[in-house]
Amino acid sequence: MSAENTQSRTLPGNAAERAANRSDTARLEAFSDGVFAIAITLLVLNIRVPLASELKGQTLLEALRQQWPAYLAYVVSFVTILLMWVGHHNMFTFIRRIDHTFLLLNGVLLMGIAIVPFPTGLLAEYLPQASYQNQQTAAAIVSLTFAFIAAMYDVLYWYAVTGQRLIAPARQAPVPRTSLVIYMVGPLLYLLAAGLALWAPGFGVQSSLAIFALLVVLYALPVTSQRSGR
Amino acid sequence: MSAENTQSRTLPGNAAERAANRSDTARLEAFSDGVFAIAITLLVLNIRVPLASELKGQTLLEALRQQWPAYLAYVVSFVTILLMWVGHHNMFTFIRRIDHTFLLLNGVLLMGIAIVPFPTGLLAEYLPQASYQNQQTAAAIVSLTFAFIAAMYDVLYWYAVTGQRLIAPARQAPVPRTSLVIYMVGPLLYLLAAGLALWAPGFGVQSSLAIFALLVVLYALPVTSQRSGR
Amino acid sequence: MSAENTQSRTLPGNAAERAANRSDTARLEAFSDGVFAIAITLLVLNIRVPLASELKGQTLLEALRQQWPAYLAYVVSFVTILLMWVGHHNMFTFIRRIDHTFLLLNGVLLMGIAIVPFPTGLLAEYLPQASYQNQQTAAAIVSLTFAFIAAMYDVLYWYAVTGQRLIAPARQAPVPRTSLVIYMVGPLLYLLAAGLALWAPGFGVQSSLAIFALLVVLYALPVTSQRSGR
Amino acid sequence: MSAENTQSRTLPGNAAERAANRSDTARLEAFSDGVFAIAITLLVLNIRVPLASELKGQTLLEALRQQWPAYLAYVVSFVTILLMWVGHHNMFTFIRRIDHTFLLLNGVLLMGIAIVPFPTGLLAEYLPQASYQNQQTAAAIVSLTFAFIAAMYDVLYWYAVTGQRLIAPARQAPVPRTSLVIYMVGPLLYLLAAGLALWAPGFGVQSSLAIFALLVVLYALPVTSQRSGR
Repeated sequence: MSAENTQSRTLPGNAAERAANRSDTARLEAFSDGVFAIAITLLVLNIRVPLASELKGQTLLEALRQQWPAYLAYVVSFVTILLMWVGHHNMFTFIRRIDHTFLLLNGVLLMGIAIVPFPTGLLAEYLPQASYQNQQTAAAIVSLTFAFIAAMYDVLYWYAVTGQRLIAPARQAPVPRTSLVIYMVGPLLYLLAAGLALWAPGFGVQSSLAIFALLVVLYALPVTSQRSGR
Repeated sequence: MSAENTQSRTLPGNAAERAANRSDTARLEAFSDGVFAIAITLLVLNIRVPLASELKGQTLLEALRQQWPAYLAYVVSFVTILLMWVGHHNMFTFIRRIDHTFLLLNGVLLMGIAIVPFPTGLLAEYLPQASYQNQQTAAAIVSLTFAFIAAMYDVLYWYAVTGQRLIAPARQAPVPRTSLVIYMVGPLLYLLAAGLALWAPGFGVQSSLAIFALLVVLYALPVTSQRSGR
Repeated sequence: MSAENTQSRTLPGNAAERAANRSDTARLEAFSDGVFAIAITLLVLNIRVPLASELKGQTLLEALRQQWPAYLAYVVSFVTILLMWVGHHNMFTFIRRIDHTFLLLNGVLLMGIAIVPFPTGLLAEYLPQASYQNQQTAAAIVSLTFAFIAAMYDVLYWYAVTGQRLIAPARQAPVPRTSLVIYMVGPLLYLLAAGLALWAPGFGVQSSLAIFALLVVLYALPVTSQRSGR
Repeated sequence: MSAENTQSRTLPGNAAERAANRSDTARLEAFSDGVFAIAITLLVLNIRVPLASELKGQTLLEALRQQWPAYLAYVVSFVTILLMWVGHHNMFTFIRRIDHTFLLLNGVLLMGIAIVPFPTGLLAEYLPQASYQNQQTAAAIVSLTFAFIAAMYDVLYWYAVTGQRLIAPARQAPVPRTSLVIYMVGPLLYLLAAGLALWAPGFGVQSSLAIFALLVVLYALPVTSQRSGR
């Protein structure tokens, strides 16, 4: 048991402690689920109801059509948060205990998730504007937010798995290699989207939106080899 | 066991995996409950507190009376989301495992639920306006949102039950035929409401509101034969 | 078993069904907790941050002092929702199963809880206004909302306990008589507060605020005899 | 058993009651988690999306840079709430039962947590303003809010541990002395921050921000001796 304690201070030594640690995991999942669920539902506040007094001769339908970027931003951010939640959910299927550092790292991830309504609002507000420069700014900020979230997800995974710190000893690679590639490449692609948004002349914003869509598809791929790989 | 794997990649092979899958179900329910609960509670933000500086000689009571469509929209949307939650809740009483596709489909359903505060806001804002055309637009958008949600609910049900993909093998029809009829007819009635709102001359908006009320009653009917049907 | 079915359609017949019903209870509690927690946390949105551009020579401290009714309304509504949650929580310690009607009644209670941020906002906006008539309207609407919530709580309790519909057969009076008196008197006192707000000349609004405070104290009393009464 | 009843009215007498009490604890944790998660996620609403119509010749990037205090306030409040949640979470690892007083005290703590978006909004609005006096007011209100939360946390801890009221009898000091020092000193340091904000000439606001950062670091320290101390 002292050997185990060297490896990880919070490694449970008996069934009672194991149960306590399991319930720790449950409460961390519940709290995280709460933040994910609230952030994803607050996104709707960025879709403004056009006030009747602001229509200026337009019909409601025309006014609603004009704010199409708000719907696009809603869908992109909703699906991205949703897939990050699926990833978080999958990660906790093999995490067996948590420690203080993991609690804090998970908190930093949640800080990224909880801020998503803000860049989503920027995208909804500035995509239809004339100023291409401001469109670039908005797209880059969204890209960097997603890059931060995707990177924090990887940090959590790396922290949990390295030296089998928080996972069951039996399994060596709880997620198959193909999934890992996508998760590791994710932050880099979001950084690429930020770079394109800022420096690609004329088509940068469209490129970064295309990368968002690509990453949604990649992250949505099933991690099928997870079970067949055993 | 290989036969089972052909049928469904995530079918549990033993008790331990079964327990893991059960806890997957629990976390999906918890996350979904979160989105349902938040969306239903955000609806109140569409009922505006009339500012004292905007009253213009009216009493507060008169100002509150004028925004009766906001209360109507609140009740319609609250009860509709509530009944969709009851349906979701009932569905999970017979779902025994989830797979990746079901996770994504459930996410699409939640995207519909989470957006409800937006069409509710449209209805609250435009029902009291003079422009009948804008009333029609608002009513049609609410109808289409509800149609989307009701259809996604049916897709989830169909996906889970077909070939007994995610349900216990013993039961063939976990929901009685009368309930099924209501659930299958739901999306069509909401589409009818959208059509009436857009094309029925003069009484279209009222008709779609009446259909919302009718569907609230239908969905609220108890699924009594669920147990007696066995 | 047919006898049991006469008494209650969803009365569980064996351990497996009992477990399923228990988990039904758990999910209803989780969903209700979500609505309670969100409604109670949304109350803060009624406390406005005074914009620097609106100060007009005032200091921030003076501007904050002027909106004291917003803090009062926050505390009154927060504590009232909190105590209703405690009551809901206590009720579920003796409820053993739920049925469709109870689900719907609980939904109506939640509709009352979720709307509380609106009357709270009215109180915060109109308590500092010159018009006594509008103060009366705001206080009466708050009173009626609380009366509705308190009455729905009683309806739920009555529905669950009558004929031992949803409680364990062994216990006859799960809540002691003194508590019951408070819970039964609650709605009437809130109605009295509404009446005073509307018709008492000059001191009606203050009277209803005093009744809110009195009911907070009454509902906060411990239900000590619950255990000693056995 | 009568001896036990003297010590604590809700001390469980047998396994069934113990299970019931445990589930009480679980629901209190779930409700508290909800309030923590919502309050922490609502903070983002204080980061305003600059409207395109308000830019006045500025670029979006310049407008975003100007509201740096909003980001600072977001991070400070997010991390502070997060660490309070971690503390709450740690506290519940050794709490074995709850009573009515603890429910109410926990509610008062949650009232403090739920109001954090308001002082955070004050800080975000007034930190960039010219008036140093208003900056002082905002910083002092944030300090007092955090002091209140930290003090309520200590009250909860003290109430649970004194006379082993709500903890398992076996453990005498569930949290090691070094952690306790930080938790006991926390409210005092926040009061110091409030005092500095109000009365230190010229550098008071900066001082209180520095104290917030210091306390974030102190609260984030792992409670390592918790296990080694046994």
